[in-house]
Amino acid sequence: MTDFTAIDHYIEDHLDDSIEELKKLCAQPSVSAQGLGIKECAELVAQMLRARGFKAEVIPTKGHPIVYGEADGASDRTLLFYNHYDVQPPEPLELWDSPPFEPTLRDGKLFARGVSDDKGHIQCRLSALDAIKAVTGRYPCKVKFVIEGEEEISSVNIVPFVEHNPQKLKADGCVWEFGGVNHEGRPNQSLGMRGICYVELHAQTGTLDAHSGLGGSIFPNAAWRLTWALSTLKGQDERIRIPGYYDNVKQPTKRDLELLAALPDDSEDMLKRYGLKGFLKGLKGGVDLRREEVFLPTCTICGLTSGYQGPGSKTVLPAQASAKVDFRLVPDQTPEEVLEKLRKHLDAEGFSDIEIKFLGGERPGRTDIDHPLVKLAIDTAREVYGKEPIVSPIIGGSGPNYVFLDSLKVPIITAGVGYPGSRAHAPNENMVIENFVQGVKHTARILEKFGETK
Amino acid sequence: MTDFTAIDHYIEDHLDDSIEELKKLCAQPSVSAQGLGIKECAELVAQMLRARGFKAEVIPTKGHPIVYGEADGASDRTLLFYNHYDVQPPEPLELWDSPPFEPTLRDGKLFARGVSDDKGHIQCRLSALDAIKAVTGRYPCKVKFVIEGEEEISSVNIVPFVEHNPQKLKADGCVWEFGGVNHEGRPNQSLGMRGICYVELHAQTGTLDAHSGLGGSIFPNAAWRLTWALSTLKGQDERIRIPGYYDNVKQPTKRDLELLAALPDDSEDMLKRYGLKGFLKGLKGGVDLRREEVFLPTCTICGLTSGYQGPGSKTVLPAQASAKVDFRLVPDQTPEEVLEKLRKHLDAEGFSDIEIKFLGGERPGRTDIDHPLVKLAIDTAREVYGKEPIVSPIIGGSGPNYVFLDSLKVPIITAGVGYPGSRAHAPNENMVIENFVQGVKHTARILEKFGETK
Repeated sequence: MTDFTAIDHYIEDHLDDSIEELKKLCAQPSVSAQGLGIKECAELVAQMLRARGFKAEVIPTKGHPIVYGEADGASDRTLLFYNHYDVQPPEPLELWDSPPFEPTLRDGKLFARGVSDDKGHIQCRLSALDAIKAVTGRYPCKVKFVIEGEEEISSVNIVPFVEHNPQKLKADGCVWEFGGVNHEGRPNQSLGMRGICYVELHAQTGTLDAHSGLGGSIFPNAAWRLTWALSTLKGQDERIRIPGYYDNVKQPTKRDLELLAALPDDSEDMLKRYGLKGFLKGLKGGVDLRREEVFLPTCTICGLTSGYQGPGSKTVLPAQASAKVDFRLVPDQTPEEVLEKLRKHLDAEGFSDIEIKFLGGERPGRTDIDHPLVKLAIDTAREVYGKEPIVSPIIGGSGPNYVFLDSLKVPIITAGVGYPGSRAHAPNENMVIENFVQGVKHTARILEKFGETK
Repeated sequence: MTDFTAIDHYIEDHLDDSIEELKKLCAQPSVSAQGLGIKECAELVAQMLRARGFKAEVIPTKGHPIVYGEADGASDRTLLFYNHYDVQPPEPLELWDSPPFEPTLRDGKLFARGVSDDKGHIQCRLSALDAIKAVTGRYPCKVKFVIEGEEEISSVNIVPFVEHNPQKLKADGCVWEFGGVNHEGRPNQSLGMRGICYVELHAQTGTLDAHSGLGGSIFPNAAWRLTWALSTLKGQDERIRIPGYYDNVKQPTKRDLELLAALPDDSEDMLKRYGLKGFLKGLKGGVDLRREEVFLPTCTICGLTSGYQGPGSKTVLPAQASAKVDFRLVPDQTPEEVLEKLRKHLDAEGFSDIEIKFLGGERPGRTDIDHPLVKLAIDTAREVYGKEPIVSPIIGGSGPNYVFLDSLKVPIITAGVGYPGSRAHAPNENMVIENFVQGVKHTARILEKFGETK
């Protein structure tokens, strides 16, 4: 049995080094949506792996490159880490209290775009490996890293990469890119993700914007076409109106609902954090709210753009209008079927003029709650955090976990540095330093105990 | 009867002087939206009036000053000229072939910001007065000028100025700020304008954007609230659904429809210019199209903004969404009633959360086609241009004409230097010198014959 006291001390004593290395990683922009700093960041991540004895490659794809690394360890078993080096766009810049790519320590937190999602997690894995090697002289198991550069733009190229490299990526377990604590400091264990189908709907009614005094009653208006088309997708009752949309939705099992019932009530915290007056449909919390939150598919307008958007008035009749729309999918929905049903629906409703641009899709995916690796992750979390872990049967977000589940047949667990105030995807993204320390300790225990397992 | 041969000769012989004076006026920037050169331009215009024997004042308002001038003439009757000395912003500067505030003669045209809208028209009025005075030794009637500095930013302060000064502005007729020829060189006579009620609809569902994976099925979404609210305003049949919206709409008279029938058919030109596949409701041109174009009130989405609008995908659930919406009004609708009905409608449809920001309003206004001044304007145009004038009972755009019609009870006619290629509001704004000469001759005839009228 490993003595974790020495490993924990090492982690604490070398915290400043870890944070310094993380600051360098966050200072390197890597905005996948804007193609900013991608190559530089991939190379930096590969160097971070090589510095630790990993064989690391920067593997080109049709999009942004994937960083792959592997190193041998004491056991023959392989633990695979999935992470991503890309980040969300930093805009709106004026809402940041310190520049997004100038990592800044403040109030026990590190602020930077990507510090929580997902660079803090990359650093967490590496700092855990550092501590184990420093104390035990070796890695406890074979370790592989797949660190992609397109997670924030729907992970388009990781899917064929995993599908085409089952031997290279062969593993006995996988640690997903995120993890961390809830608002009470209890560690989360997430056992699945919804899928996603992300599209842009585009209306184009002419080649030139017109004066609204001229065409208002006789010219087609792209903003109106888009508004009407969108309004057919979902009713004010939140029911999605695309025919057959709910056909393949699996209902949660009794076990799922028990897990949901055991989850702590963070509904008041959510209302406060997002400044909401209430949840949809009058939901008040409890199993009912949680069930809707993760076991229902969604249709979310993520963005609208058309015509004049500046201060005051401009009397223009827009020739173009676009909406970004995100469908979250539950087992057994697929992005392909949603795309097909969406096209049919728009055509049937008289909107064959609305173009659908497919911007990315992922299938939903879940890990078996009864897998021994899940128990290992939960037990080690209890040990590190000193609180009872929270186990979510599925969470609302999406990722390429399904391709690892389906192609590599690995169970997937979570561990990490996140917390509800991390503002991932928003201005002032941050990571609490104390959460980083806990995440590193948890990851170190997972690695070590995974290596001990026969 | 005045001999117009001498007046016309004077206008032609002194054309260079007129253009030189106009160049000086255009060289003085006066960008109301940017507050650039406003005071200097108002003072310059006042001096141009004083140089012609006018008593001229620069009258402060809550915004930019109004230049007022008056001079006596042979007749007791008063002709009032409404113009504006402010211009649109010159940006984008790189699209100008010569600098916007360095007036340049090229190909028989004078290029400068404001040369057509509206400084060429100010010069046109003054050059007509010069010619008459030089030939006849007096002004033919009492002449008043109201030249505002906020026409390009919705004429906010001209309305109370006119309402509070009915005696000062008392007149028997008014010449509006614009006029000119169509693409065939036929002079236009426009006898009214639609009104406008311009609002911003704002939805705010929280204080912070959320991750779409988190809140998609349980958080209110501002973009959805806005989309649903907008979709209640107008149906795909183009019928505006606000209760009572059409109550005060006056139908066009038989006379109006005859005038519409006599207008030249520019429908093919419009389709081509704006790259449209067709007009709304399958309209093909002719009276039906023109009737919808100007005698129907509208509800136009001028802009939409919410959430992520950049390239690719961002999975965000927006807390805010806004639309700019422009209602064009026909007699006897008012912006006040539309605002009130819009609020009631949104409340009744369950959208009391949607905020309405009123960004500006103008009432519709029309001049009686049978007023003798209209006949005078049309007859003199036929004489000068040698072509049959085009008479529009009302045009689609809006302006402060209603306050002159309602408060001063004056009929309003048009005359001027414009043409379809003037690029008002765009780079390379220009005026054709020949159109200037015609506009001055037409204005001189209007003045002279107006003075002769008992």
